[in-house]
Amino acid sequence: MAGYDPQNIFARILRNELPALRVYEDDQVICIMDRFPQADGHVLVIPREAAETLFELSEASLEAVARVTKRVAAAVRQVTQAPGIRLAQFNGAAAGQTVPHFHFHIIPMQEAHGLRPHGRVEGDEARLAELAEQISAALRG
Amino acid sequence: MAGYDPQNIFARILRNELPALRVYEDDQVICIMDRFPQADGHVLVIPREAAETLFELSEASLEAVARVTKRVAAAVRQVTQAPGIRLAQFNGAAAGQTVPHFHFHIIPMQEAHGLRPHGRVEGDEARLAELAEQISAALRG
Repeated sequence: MAGYDPQNIFARILRNELPALRVYEDDQVICIMDRFPQADGHVLVIPREAAETLFELSEASLEAVARVTKRVAAAVRQVTQAPGIRLAQFNGAAAGQTVPHFHFHIIPMQEAHGLRPHGRVEGDEARLAELAEQISAALRG
Repeated sequence: MAGYDPQNIFARILRNELPALRVYEDDQVICIMDRFPQADGHVLVIPREAAETLFELSEASLEAVARVTKRVAAAVRQVTQAPGIRLAQFNGAAAGQTVPHFHFHIIPMQEAHGLRPHGRVEGDEARLAELAEQISAALRG
């Protein structure tokens, strides 16, 4: 990773250099309408802290993001009357991240469609166990 | 919503009535391998609290989930060497929720593929503004 880019569009929005439709802000977090909504009511939760991904974000900002996400998601649900709310957060271009400043998506869902299978294809038991052990070990050390 | 179902599979895993590959646990949260992985290293972060969705989950559990998710995602990344990590959390069947107990998905991504367009189709300005105002108003009151 080349380090945080202070010219990314969310950094510029945070500095009021670019416009955005803000639906909430406090001293740690702002929330704006996604300009490219995947559904009506798609909102982004953006910490003020200059962090590209989850891995650079401080625990304090992350907790603030979590609290605000819950509150704003409830508002989105109320407004859209969507029966489902999806949260998504992408780290790295390979995960679909398009702006290199940490953000959570709040996406109202009318139905589960158009996504890759979820809970459909059972994994290989040995491979699951192997990964379980590796991740446990990584956490211990 | 009909209320929390104590017989859902995560509740049974939490009570040790069903097996699971646990990669982490503390007094608030457990993490297990997803039995139906969307990618190698797909892990679920599950609060012990009996909550069906984000909207029923306490702030304390949510913060614990956020902290643990960050830590476990780093371990998943280390193990899988995936260039991307995606977080996802589904509330309601319409959002793709298949087990009625709150959980976060940690999904290593080798490339962004097979998902609905993200950051591609610009929204209608007036509609965005309308929703922004409605959500702001809902948050105020």
